[in-house]
Amino acid sequence: MTNKKINEGDYVLLYLDPRRTYLIKVETGKNFHTHKGFIKLDELVGKDFGTTVPSSVGVEFTALKPALTDYIMKSSRKTQITYPKDAALIVMLSGIGPGSRVVESGTGTGALTTALAHYVKPDGKVYTYELREEFQKNAEKNLKRAGLLDFVELKSGDITGGIEERDVDAVVLDLAVPWLVVPHAYQALKPSGTIVSFSPTIDQVVKTVEALKENNFVFIETVECLMRSMQVERGKTRPHTMMTGHTGYITCARKALKTPQ
Amino acid sequence: MTNKKINEGDYVLLYLDPRRTYLIKVETGKNFHTHKGFIKLDELVGKDFGTTVPSSVGVEFTALKPALTDYIMKSSRKTQITYPKDAALIVMLSGIGPGSRVVESGTGTGALTTALAHYVKPDGKVYTYELREEFQKNAEKNLKRAGLLDFVELKSGDITGGIEERDVDAVVLDLAVPWLVVPHAYQALKPSGTIVSFSPTIDQVVKTVEALKENNFVFIETVECLMRSMQVERGKTRPHTMMTGHTGYITCARKALKTPQ
Amino acid sequence: MTNKKINEGDYVLLYLDPRRTYLIKVETGKNFHTHKGFIKLDELVGKDFGTTVPSSVGVEFTALKPALTDYIMKSSRKTQITYPKDAALIVMLSGIGPGSRVVESGTGTGALTTALAHYVKPDGKVYTYELREEFQKNAEKNLKRAGLLDFVELKSGDITGGIEERDVDAVVLDLAVPWLVVPHAYQALKPSGTIVSFSPTIDQVVKTVEALKENNFVFIETVECLMRSMQVERGKTRPHTMMTGHTGYITCARKALKTPQ
Amino acid sequence: MTNKKINEGDYVLLYLDPRRTYLIKVETGKNFHTHKGFIKLDELVGKDFGTTVPSSVGVEFTALKPALTDYIMKSSRKTQITYPKDAALIVMLSGIGPGSRVVESGTGTGALTTALAHYVKPDGKVYTYELREEFQKNAEKNLKRAGLLDFVELKSGDITGGIEERDVDAVVLDLAVPWLVVPHAYQALKPSGTIVSFSPTIDQVVKTVEALKENNFVFIETVECLMRSMQVERGKTRPHTMMTGHTGYITCARKALKTPQ
Repeated sequence: MTNKKINEGDYVLLYLDPRRTYLIKVETGKNFHTHKGFIKLDELVGKDFGTTVPSSVGVEFTALKPALTDYIMKSSRKTQITYPKDAALIVMLSGIGPGSRVVESGTGTGALTTALAHYVKPDGKVYTYELREEFQKNAEKNLKRAGLLDFVELKSGDITGGIEERDVDAVVLDLAVPWLVVPHAYQALKPSGTIVSFSPTIDQVVKTVEALKENNFVFIETVECLMRSMQVERGKTRPHTMMTGHTGYITCARKALKTPQ
Repeated sequence: MTNKKINEGDYVLLYLDPRRTYLIKVETGKNFHTHKGFIKLDELVGKDFGTTVPSSVGVEFTALKPALTDYIMKSSRKTQITYPKDAALIVMLSGIGPGSRVVESGTGTGALTTALAHYVKPDGKVYTYELREEFQKNAEKNLKRAGLLDFVELKSGDITGGIEERDVDAVVLDLAVPWLVVPHAYQALKPSGTIVSFSPTIDQVVKTVEALKENNFVFIETVECLMRSMQVERGKTRPHTMMTGHTGYITCARKALKTPQ
Repeated sequence: MTNKKINEGDYVLLYLDPRRTYLIKVETGKNFHTHKGFIKLDELVGKDFGTTVPSSVGVEFTALKPALTDYIMKSSRKTQITYPKDAALIVMLSGIGPGSRVVESGTGTGALTTALAHYVKPDGKVYTYELREEFQKNAEKNLKRAGLLDFVELKSGDITGGIEERDVDAVVLDLAVPWLVVPHAYQALKPSGTIVSFSPTIDQVVKTVEALKENNFVFIETVECLMRSMQVERGKTRPHTMMTGHTGYITCARKALKTPQ
Repeated sequence: MTNKKINEGDYVLLYLDPRRTYLIKVETGKNFHTHKGFIKLDELVGKDFGTTVPSSVGVEFTALKPALTDYIMKSSRKTQITYPKDAALIVMLSGIGPGSRVVESGTGTGALTTALAHYVKPDGKVYTYELREEFQKNAEKNLKRAGLLDFVELKSGDITGGIEERDVDAVVLDLAVPWLVVPHAYQALKPSGTIVSFSPTIDQVVKTVEALKENNFVFIETVECLMRSMQVERGKTRPHTMMTGHTGYITCARKALKTPQ
C-alpha cells in the first residue's frame, strides 16, 4: 500500500470520465490507444499515481492506482461478475476480515474471489471451487492482476460433492444449486460460522432457506440490494434513468451446534 | 479468530429469532433475563460458540459469536448509526483493506468506525474526529466491546478546521457539512486516494460534489443503496412490508494530482 | 362535480397537514374534536370547499372536497386496503374507463371498488363478489360515503364457483386464490378483455401466471410498484426514511380467442 | 365499448410476445410485415378482437383491441412519453374522472393527454397547451388514433403566460418550469381543485413546492414511483435485470381559499 510511484509492470486505471476508464499494465515502449488519442505509457513511469497526462490529442487522462472496485468491474469475464454492491454486502454479512479463512464456489470470473481475498489478506485464505477449467484460468488471471493470487487457493472440483476444508470462518456460494452445498458447508464451518449465498431466482432462495433450516443453521435472512446512481449537478440533480433492477438475492445464516439429545 | 470456546468476559449474541437477538457479556454468577425466561450465563462458559441453551422456561437460545454486523446493529446509540448496507458500500468504495490508514469524521456512535477498524486491522489505523465528547465516549465503549479499539485513534476536534494526518489511503465523512472538509481531505490523502461521503440530503450532496470538482478530485460518483428484506417460506414468499426507504446518499471520488502549469 | 359550496350532509376532508387529515360528515349542531381544538361544523355550511377555518384554539384547518384518494385512504377497514399506488396501476392496466363493466373479487374494504366505480361511472358498472358479509357491509358504507354505490353491484358469493356476468371489459382480482378464478374470468370476459390480479406472494403469482397460460390468456405481465415519498424543502430535501417496501405484485393479461382447430 | 368485431379502419394491437406488439390500422388489401412473416389484414376484417391469426410463415399473432396503455406506449414520439406507471398515478392523484375538466401542459407527445381524455370522457374535457407546433400536430395524430380527440382542446401557446380556463377540476403539468405556472393554476382551479406536476429533477421539485406554498396550495406531497417487472416461471422466477430507475417526481397539492383578513 505504500508505493506511490508508477513502476513498469504496475497496473493503472486511466480515467477520462466515470463511463470511460481503462485498466492497463504499464509497459515501456507501448502506447495505449483510445478514442481520444493515445497515451505513451513510458511517460507514466516514475510519476505519482493520480497524475494527469495528456493524450496525443491533448485530452487529459488521470492515471489512478486501481482500487478493489476497479479490479472487480474490469474483471475479464467468462460469465457474470458479482457487482460491487453485492460483493460489499456479501463480504460484510459473511463477517470475514483480515485473517479469515473462507470457502467460495463457484469461482466464476473471480470478481467475488477478488473481494474476499482483498479483505482476508495477508494471513487469511480463500479456498475457491470451480468446475470449469476455462473459468478457473480466467479467474486466475484476474486475481494475479489484482495482486491477490497468493491469498487464494484455486480448487478444481464440484463443491456439491463435498468441501475439504474444516473450521473455516465463512462459506460463500454463488452457484446454481446452493441448497446441495448447505450440508457440506455445515461440516466445513466452525461453530457460529457464517454462510452467505447469492442467487438470482426466488426458487433457489426458497430451496436454500429450507436446506439451511434442515441443517441447523440459524439467523437466516434474505435481502436484496438495489443501487441507484445519481446525476449530481446544481439545477439538474436527479437519479439516472436506467438502473440494474435485479442481480440476485443474498441469503445469510449462521451455524448453530446441534443440541445434544 | 481462533478461539471457539466461550470464556468469561467474552461477548455472545444470544439468538432467539432474527428480530430478537441480544449482545451480552458473559459474566459468571449472572443471569440474562428475557421475555422467554432467563439464561444462566455460567452455563455458557466453556461451551463452543454456536451452542444452543434452554432458558429457564425451556425456550432455546443460540449463543453465537458476535459478527461485525452484530456489533454495528447493537451499537450503543447516542445518534444515528450507519447501517450495514451503507457501511458495506462505504468500505468497498473507499478501497481500504488490511493495513490501510483512514481518516473518519464524525465518529458518531462509532458504528462505521467499527466497520473501518475491522477491515484495516491489524496493521492499519482509523483516525476518527468527533466534536462532541459524549459521542466519543460512547463510541469508545462500542469499539472496546468489539475488540477494535487498538486500531482506532479517537481524536477530539473539528475536522472542518483541518486534518492532521498525511498520506492516508481514504477519508470517510458522515457529518453535516462534508463540503467544508473536502480541501482538508485533499491535503490528507495520498495521490489517487479515495474520499467517501455519506449524507442524507440532496443539498449536501450537491455542495459536496461541487467542492470535489473544485478541489481536483475525479471519478466522482453518487449512489444510494436500498436494501429490502424477504420473507422466505414455501407458499408464502414475499418481500417484507416495511423497509427503510432512505438513509443517505454515498458520494465517492479520488484525488488527482494537479496538472503542473 | 359542480357543487362548490359545502352543504349539510356533505363530506369534507379537514386538512391540518399531510399526516393529519380527517374525513367527516358535515352535520349541523356538531363539533369535530381534534388535538388542536374543535371545529364547529355549522360554520362550514354554505362556505366554499377549500375554505380555511380556525379551530377553537386558533389552529387553521382547510375544508377540502374529498378526492378519490381520500376516500381510498380513509376507508373504514375490516381488512387491508388497496393503496392508491396499486389502485392507480390496476385501473390503468385493466383498460377500463367511463362505461366499462368490471367484475371484481374480493370486495374487501371496498377501497379498490371505490376506484373502479369512480372511473366507470356514470354508465358502467362494477360487479364485486365477496364471501364475508361483514366485509360487504363495511364496503357498502365506504362506497355510499364516496357517492359511488349506484355504480356498484355488491354480490355475496364465492367467485371461485363461477362468475355470472358475461361480456365484461375487465376482471380484477385481489383474493387468496386468483388462479382458481382464471377459467371463470375467461368465460366472463369479452374477447380481448383484460384480467388484473393483485397478490402479495410470489407463489400466488406463479400459480396465477400458469393458469393464465393454460386458459388462453396472452400479453401476461407481472410488475410491482414501489412508491417513495419525499421531504421537499430547500436545503433539506431527501426521501422520507420509512417506506412501504411491498404490498403486492400486479399481474395482467388479455383474453385471446382459442384458435379453431 | 361494444363493438367486438374488427372492421376496416379499426386499430388492432398485433401481439406476438410482450416485447413484440404492433399497433396497426386495418386496411383491406394491405399486408403487415414482421420478422416472423406477414399478416394479410383482409383476414382480420369481420373477426372478433382477440382472434389469433397465423402469419405467412405460420407464426401466430393475436389481434387485440388496443387498450389505453397500448395507445400510450405506441405514441408516435417527438419527445419523451409519460409512462403508464406515472400516468396512472398522475390521473389518480389529480382526482379526475368522467366529466372532469382538466388543464394540461405541455402536450408533448400527447401520451398523458391520452390518459386524461380517456378518463374524463364523454362529458369532460382536457385543455392542453403546447408551445411547439410540431409536438401539437404529432399529439393530435396520437389522440385521433386513440379515438379521443373529441375530448381534447389542443391549445397553442405558452401556459407560463396564463391559463384561459376557469373553474377546472385539475391542472396537470409536465414542463420545464412548472413553478411559473403555479399562480395561473391557482386562478384556473376551482376551490379545492388539484394540481399535479411531473418533473425529472429535484431542483424543479423544490421550486415548484415553494411556489405552491406561496400560492396558498395545501396538502403538498411529492412522490416517485418505481415499477419493476418480473419474469414469472416456475423455477426461474425473478425480477428482470434492467429497469427504469427514474422518470420523474410527482408533486400534487390542492387549492385552499385564502383566509379573509
